[in-house]
Amino acid sequence: MPGRWQNEETLLSGVVIPLQGDRGAKASIEPLVKLVKPDMERVNRLILAKAGSDVEMIPEVARHLIDSGGKRLRPMLTIAAARMCGYEGEHHVMLAASVEFMHTATLLHDDVVDESEMRRGKKAARMVWGNQASVLVGDFLLGQAFRMMVETGSLSALDVLSHAATVIAEGEVLQLSTARNLDTNEDEYLAVIRAKTAALFSAAAEVGPIVAGAPKSTISAFRSYGTNLGLAFQLIDDALDYGGSSATLGKNVGDDFREGKVTLPVVLAYRRGSDSERDFWKEALVDNHTDDDRLGEAVRLMHKYDAIADTVARARHYAEMARDALAPMKRGDHKDALVEVLEFCVGRAE
Amino acid sequence: MPGRWQNEETLLSGVVIPLQGDRGAKASIEPLVKLVKPDMERVNRLILAKAGSDVEMIPEVARHLIDSGGKRLRPMLTIAAARMCGYEGEHHVMLAASVEFMHTATLLHDDVVDESEMRRGKKAARMVWGNQASVLVGDFLLGQAFRMMVETGSLSALDVLSHAATVIAEGEVLQLSTARNLDTNEDEYLAVIRAKTAALFSAAAEVGPIVAGAPKSTISAFRSYGTNLGLAFQLIDDALDYGGSSATLGKNVGDDFREGKVTLPVVLAYRRGSDSERDFWKEALVDNHTDDDRLGEAVRLMHKYDAIADTVARARHYAEMARDALAPMKRGDHKDALVEVLEFCVGRAE
Repeated sequence: MPGRWQNEETLLSGVVIPLQGDRGAKASIEPLVKLVKPDMERVNRLILAKAGSDVEMIPEVARHLIDSGGKRLRPMLTIAAARMCGYEGEHHVMLAASVEFMHTATLLHDDVVDESEMRRGKKAARMVWGNQASVLVGDFLLGQAFRMMVETGSLSALDVLSHAATVIAEGEVLQLSTARNLDTNEDEYLAVIRAKTAALFSAAAEVGPIVAGAPKSTISAFRSYGTNLGLAFQLIDDALDYGGSSATLGKNVGDDFREGKVTLPVVLAYRRGSDSERDFWKEALVDNHTDDDRLGEAVRLMHKYDAIADTVARARHYAEMARDALAPMKRGDHKDALVEVLEFCVGRAE
Repeated sequence: MPGRWQNEETLLSGVVIPLQGDRGAKASIEPLVKLVKPDMERVNRLILAKAGSDVEMIPEVARHLIDSGGKRLRPMLTIAAARMCGYEGEHHVMLAASVEFMHTATLLHDDVVDESEMRRGKKAARMVWGNQASVLVGDFLLGQAFRMMVETGSLSALDVLSHAATVIAEGEVLQLSTARNLDTNEDEYLAVIRAKTAALFSAAAEVGPIVAGAPKSTISAFRSYGTNLGLAFQLIDDALDYGGSSATLGKNVGDDFREGKVTLPVVLAYRRGSDSERDFWKEALVDNHTDDDRLGEAVRLMHKYDAIADTVARARHYAEMARDALAPMKRGDHKDALVEVLEFCVGRAE
């Protein structure tokens, strides 16, 4: 759409901020954190209040996850997007808390679906309170998320977020069919992460301008920013699960390998490998032989075929798309912070 | 509220329809089924359409349960209530389908939580497709339910149904704490069924007058009707799980016993029993020795202490409350059918 570039505001705002390299300091999420801090304090208070219930076990389980120190990137997107569009009301706080609850509910259900034992370095809720509690507290939080959305009275925000809820579930089901399935190709992998991860990033960013009453093109810009940031974020997460670009393996590595997930680093290494290397992948992921030696071999093959580096390169592609989605928007602290988040996100794996 | 009885319409409509005994034929759900048939055909088409997804497994799992022949009592309540309030639009069909999806989602999650092997005489979805699919397809249907509500644009209906969603989840969590817990008393049992069952009946009935733009007192009447019908319905279900009032045990009996659920028949028989009989209950439900001989003994003790008959009597109490909730409403086919459902519901266990 060349026409996009033709108005004055665009020309003024079209200054290129390089995503890579020529800055003194490494990109950081801190400028965003600092900008949204007062609002996020209200989001966090609301989250704690709405995780409450007379049924004792519910706040216990919810807080186990809520207190476990996620970055709260998704609700920060909602806050920053609303503020960037000049919003001065209260509803962005409720929508941000809704977004975080939807995310928390997904994590609780994911742990059951994936039979995970750990989450964010703590025991997964299901290991402490059982699968039952994880399923039901997830349902409770999803219900609370919808109640908060309803409270804002914004049918457009409800539309966007309820649609995201179905797409996320579809993505998780789709992911079941790719697990231990080495026929999965890059497009199929992308369809999974677009649904299970990018849909919520997209909705989180989109409801900011919606609640601010911003014009359609702005809403669309934030939706695109969120989608592409979400894709980049998940690609980097998947690269980090094999240690990222550094050849040394740290802690918290290999979860995807042990669960037989066919993420992009695997897709690339498998497709680029020799027949005997492909036999290795089948034995590991299909037949589920995933000890530490095999994890080491998997990482070796990934580096041999640039599978990690190219996963990061793919992430950079989506980060660039996200940055360009915001290009027509006015410069300012919020925009700078949101663009820096892209670089921060990709930089994690380099 | 004596004032409630003082207007003419109330006096005209206050004709007492006896809930028990002096009719020629046994009460039936058929009059309701017949009245709502054209609308329910549209509800059923919408349900099939909205259970669709490009992700193949989703419609398979959803239809397994959708086609398994539930009575669809909840969506029928929404339809009948809306029609009784003179509604002529389309939104009651969408809300009815939402209500059924919320119910289906709950069943899918319940089977995972209860580790059930059967549901409505068929293998539970989790036994065919696994816990994973049951959790995620439940999430998908819940998302679709909210999308349909949003489509109606009714924030009041959204408020009522999203509140119900959180209360149902709270009820299920509360139920976990009563399982195999013989200290559970009748009030605690009531709190569970009020949340896990009556909340959705209540919401299903309430959104009918809401979508019809009925006055507050009418909305409140239907809410009360739904709540008390829901309580009666669950009490009767729990009585039927031990064969109802007949002393002979048919098929599909004893599920609650084998799952260690402390339902009202158990609460009453346990509390009214001798010390040695209480030891029997502990051995059966707490220590999980629930073979068929013990099931027979459980039923014998229930009849010895009138635990089943009194559970049915309690159900009748709530059915009477439900009937009285509708008393101020104008007579007509819909009202008659909704009152007959109460008798049908209680009559199942006699």
